Amino acid sequence: MIGGKINLEELAQAITDKTILISIMFANNEIGTIQEVEKISKIAHLNNIIFHTDAVQAAGNVKIDVRNLGIDMLSMSSHKIYGPKGVGALYVRKGINFEKFINGGHQEKNKRAGTENVAGIVGFGKACELASKCLDAHIDYIQHLRDYYISNVIKRIDRIKINGTMQSRLPGNANISFEQINGGDLLLELDNKGICASSGSACTSGSSEPSHVLTAIGLKSDLAAGALRVSFGEFNTKEEVDYLINCLIQSVNKLRNYKEI
Amino acid sequence: MIGGKINLEELAQAITDKTILISIMFANNEIGTIQEVEKISKIAHLNNIIFHTDAVQAAGNVKIDVRNLGIDMLSMSSHKIYGPKGVGALYVRKGINFEKFINGGHQEKNKRAGTENVAGIVGFGKACELASKCLDAHIDYIQHLRDYYISNVIKRIDRIKINGTMQSRLPGNANISFEQINGGDLLLELDNKGICASSGSACTSGSSEPSHVLTAIGLKSDLAAGALRVSFGEFNTKEEVDYLINCLIQSVNKLRNYKEI
Repeated sequence: MIGGKINLEELAQAITDKTILISIMFANNEIGTIQEVEKISKIAHLNNIIFHTDAVQAAGNVKIDVRNLGIDMLSMSSHKIYGPKGVGALYVRKGINFEKFINGGHQEKNKRAGTENVAGIVGFGKACELASKCLDAHIDYIQHLRDYYISNVIKRIDRIKINGTMQSRLPGNANISFEQINGGDLLLELDNKGICASSGSACTSGSSEPSHVLTAIGLKSDLAAGALRVSFGEFNTKEEVDYLINCLIQSVNKLRNYKEI
Repeated sequence: MIGGKINLEELAQAITDKTILISIMFANNEIGTIQEVEKISKIAHLNNIIFHTDAVQAAGNVKIDVRNLGIDMLSMSSHKIYGPKGVGALYVRKGINFEKFINGGHQEKNKRAGTENVAGIVGFGKACELASKCLDAHIDYIQHLRDYYISNVIKRIDRIKINGTMQSRLPGNANISFEQINGGDLLLELDNKGICASSGSACTSGSSEPSHVLTAIGLKSDLAAGALRVSFGEFNTKEEVDYLINCLIQSVNKLRNYKEI
C-alpha cells in the first residue's frame, strides 16, 4: 500500500476458493486515495468473483461509469452529493441476486422492508441529476481550492507531512500531519474560529484511537495523532481557504509554542 | 381469537423455557383490534420474558403509557402520525440490552449504523409532540367519522359483515366484507371515484392472496376476498364520508348486478 493504494498482486494472491465477493472503497474517506477500480474488477471477474465498491466518497467527485469500470455493485450516499441526509442507494448489476437486507414488507424489490423515505429519495434523485450535470466544473473548482490550500501549507508551515498520494486523490480532500501537534487540540483551535474539520473519519469522531487508515499507510502514532483532514466543497470560497490557512498557521504556532515552553 | 383478540390463556400456554421475547401488535392494521397489552405484559414479566409491541398503528390513535402498560420495547412509525415518511422509533426501557441492527458507524447509540435522516427525525419529533397534545380530540373526531360510516353501511347495504370487534378497535378503522363482491373490483370502482381504500394491508398490496388476518379470525375465503378496509384520518370531513357511502352503495349494487346477470 503506497499512499493507501491497494497492491494488486497482493489482492490477487489473497483470493481463495471461498472468496465470493471483493469489496473495495472506491476512494478513501480520510486520505482521499482513489483505487484502481477497473483493474480490481478485472481481477475479480477473472476469478468469477462479484465486485462491489463503496463509492460514498467518490460519487459526485469522480467520473464513474459502472459498465466501463466493471462494477457489479456500488453503494452511494445522498448527503455526500448535496442531497438530503439519511438516503443512500445500492446499484446492482442485472443478473446479480442477493439476500434481502430487512425482512417484512415487499418494499424496494423485496430487499429492504419498510415505508420508504419518499421525500428523501426524490431529493437524492435530483441531487444525482445535478451532480452528474455539473461534475467536471465541480471537480475543477474544489481541486483548485484544495491545491491552493496544500501548496500554502507546504510553503508556510514547516514540519508537516501530506498523507496519501497527490496522483490519484479525491479532488476535495486534504490530509496533513503536523509534527508536534495533537489533532484534537488543533480541531478545537479551529473550531473556536468557526472552522469545521476532522482528525479522522466522522464515523469514529469521539474516539481517541489514532486513525486506522493513517496507521495502515505506515504513519507512526505521533504523526497519525497530528493529522488534520480538511474537505473542500462546492460552497467554499477562496476567501474561506485564505482564512483557514491563516488560522492554521496561528494555531500550529500556538500549540507548538505551548509544547516548547 | 374473537374479533382478532389474543386469547391470553393460549398465550400463557405457548410460553416455553426457550421463550425470550413476546412481541404483539398493539393494534392490528387490517381490522383495528386493540390487544390487552397490559395483561400480556404481565404474563411476559411473570415469566421473565421481555415484552415488545409493534405500536405502528396504535401510536397517535390510542393513549399509550409505556410504564403503566409494562412495555419494555415499542416500535412506532412517523408517517402514521402525520410525520414524514421513512422514519421510525424503537423505544427501549432502560436496562434492556439488545444486539445492534446495522453494523458500521456508531450512530444511534451504536445500534444502527448510517448517517441519520436528520430532517425526518426532527419532523417526527414535532409530529409526536402534536399527536400527544391533540390525542383526545383526534380520537373523538375520527371515531365519529368511522362510526357514522359503519352505521350508514349497516343501514343502507345488505349482506355485509363487520370484521373485527367494535368494543376495542382503533378509532379510525373500518373493515367490512361485502358478500358476493370481490374487494379488488370494489377498490377499482372506488379509485375511479377518487377514493383511496384497501382490501388488505398496504404491505401486501399487489398480492392476490386473501388477507391472512381475515382468514385467521375465521372468515371464509369469499368473505375475506370481499373485504374493504377504510381508514379515517385527521383531514377527512363528514362530506367526504357521505360521498364515500354514496359511491360504495352504487359500486356494490353495480358489482352485484353484474354477477347476477
